[in-house]
Amino acid sequence: MEKPLILVTNDDGITAPGIRALVDVAMELGDVVVVAPDSPQSGMGHAITISDPIRLHPNDRVFEGLESYECSGTPVDCVKLAKHVVLKDRKPDICLSGINHGSNASINIIYSGTLSAAMEASLEGIPSIGFSLLDYSYEANFEACKPYVRELIEWVLKHGLDEGSLLNVNIPALPYDELKGLRVCRQADARWKEEFTEAQDPRGQKYYWLTGRFSNDDKADDTDIWALENNYISVVPSMHDLTNYRALKTLKAIENL
Amino acid sequence: MEKPLILVTNDDGITAPGIRALVDVAMELGDVVVVAPDSPQSGMGHAITISDPIRLHPNDRVFEGLESYECSGTPVDCVKLAKHVVLKDRKPDICLSGINHGSNASINIIYSGTLSAAMEASLEGIPSIGFSLLDYSYEANFEACKPYVRELIEWVLKHGLDEGSLLNVNIPALPYDELKGLRVCRQADARWKEEFTEAQDPRGQKYYWLTGRFSNDDKADDTDIWALENNYISVVPSMHDLTNYRALKTLKAIENL
Repeated sequence: MEKPLILVTNDDGITAPGIRALVDVAMELGDVVVVAPDSPQSGMGHAITISDPIRLHPNDRVFEGLESYECSGTPVDCVKLAKHVVLKDRKPDICLSGINHGSNASINIIYSGTLSAAMEASLEGIPSIGFSLLDYSYEANFEACKPYVRELIEWVLKHGLDEGSLLNVNIPALPYDELKGLRVCRQADARWKEEFTEAQDPRGQKYYWLTGRFSNDDKADDTDIWALENNYISVVPSMHDLTNYRALKTLKAIENL
Repeated sequence: MEKPLILVTNDDGITAPGIRALVDVAMELGDVVVVAPDSPQSGMGHAITISDPIRLHPNDRVFEGLESYECSGTPVDCVKLAKHVVLKDRKPDICLSGINHGSNASINIIYSGTLSAAMEASLEGIPSIGFSLLDYSYEANFEACKPYVRELIEWVLKHGLDEGSLLNVNIPALPYDELKGLRVCRQADARWKEEFTEAQDPRGQKYYWLTGRFSNDDKADDTDIWALENNYISVVPSMHDLTNYRALKTLKAIENL
């Protein structure tokens, strides 16, 4: 049997420890091609590069012996270039993005380069998974979650996903023994409460840093936040359709304006 | 009665003709505050600026006599700064984004800075509308659609929208007489078929430009693409929940892995 072709990307950049952990697992399961940003791209959401040229260079220094490329664009650009320039007629059996350093649960999905890369792959008909570990540090421990990461990839390779679907997987930063398993859930309806830090540069000009804290009033037990708070790995099936179907009917009135 | 407070932003930048047209209409309906990018930000999706400082400067040269600011960040940054730094305790009654030069119908919503700004406002509990005209040119004619833009803003000011909801409004580039009215619809399940143009810079280094063509196989008559092709203004109620609810059940199996 032919080995599956696995495309790996991320948003923390090709040298991040998180993508190394994901590549380690992926290499046990198939032929791996890496196309990842050449610099950190956190918070890029579904941004694409349309007003600037994009650079793409083979990089064999990070993943020796693997077909891998670094790209000057966003995570979504990486997936587009992987498909159209790097792989061409070789269609990946799965696209993996991450493992992100930090949570992409709940509303974070819309700001996340990691998940936008996975969504872009799903738009191209490639089943995809975005992985995130709830630890922002560079020294995060990606070992404990590896058995679960592997199981999920194997499951999706075997069963596939609905057309246009992706999985948003978030993992508590816990030792393996304390992880309670996988839990399929919906995106919690939480928000960021932003604050801006005001400062002055050496020339006396004001500037702002975006900061904030995550705030969740959605206390139901079927959400990703609940799962994570209870030591489960959260798995949210996600997609690209933003239509608010419930509102379609209420709004019909405006057709008669 | 107090006049409504209207926040206006866009992604083509504060000097674009599209935002001027939107401000013209908004000024007839309420007190307007503009916070818009200082440069074009098309294709930025829901990107936020977290690794760089953000600049925010009053700009009274573009909209004389209006409270207006230009911001070095993305459209989503503009909305966050508007709320937390510019307006503070003054909560806008509505947020308007656009009028974008070019379509944001169907899948374009996920790449669009215009719609991401509107979504960010909706996350903050502000009813919001993203407007786009199907004409990419700088000289696009924004006059014909103004009566509809006004009607929609008035309707939302009066009736509000579901919590966390926004409207994605796209307008055919037609004379007023040929516009058939408003049509409430869902996001068509269409895609971009990408191509990359390869070129060499003067130093002999390869680079790529992202190009592509829009391709729609979703031929039903309840979509935004159908509406636009039939000379209607499309109105898609949209939201930030990306959960694929239909897939939740199928996936339950993985909880037993």
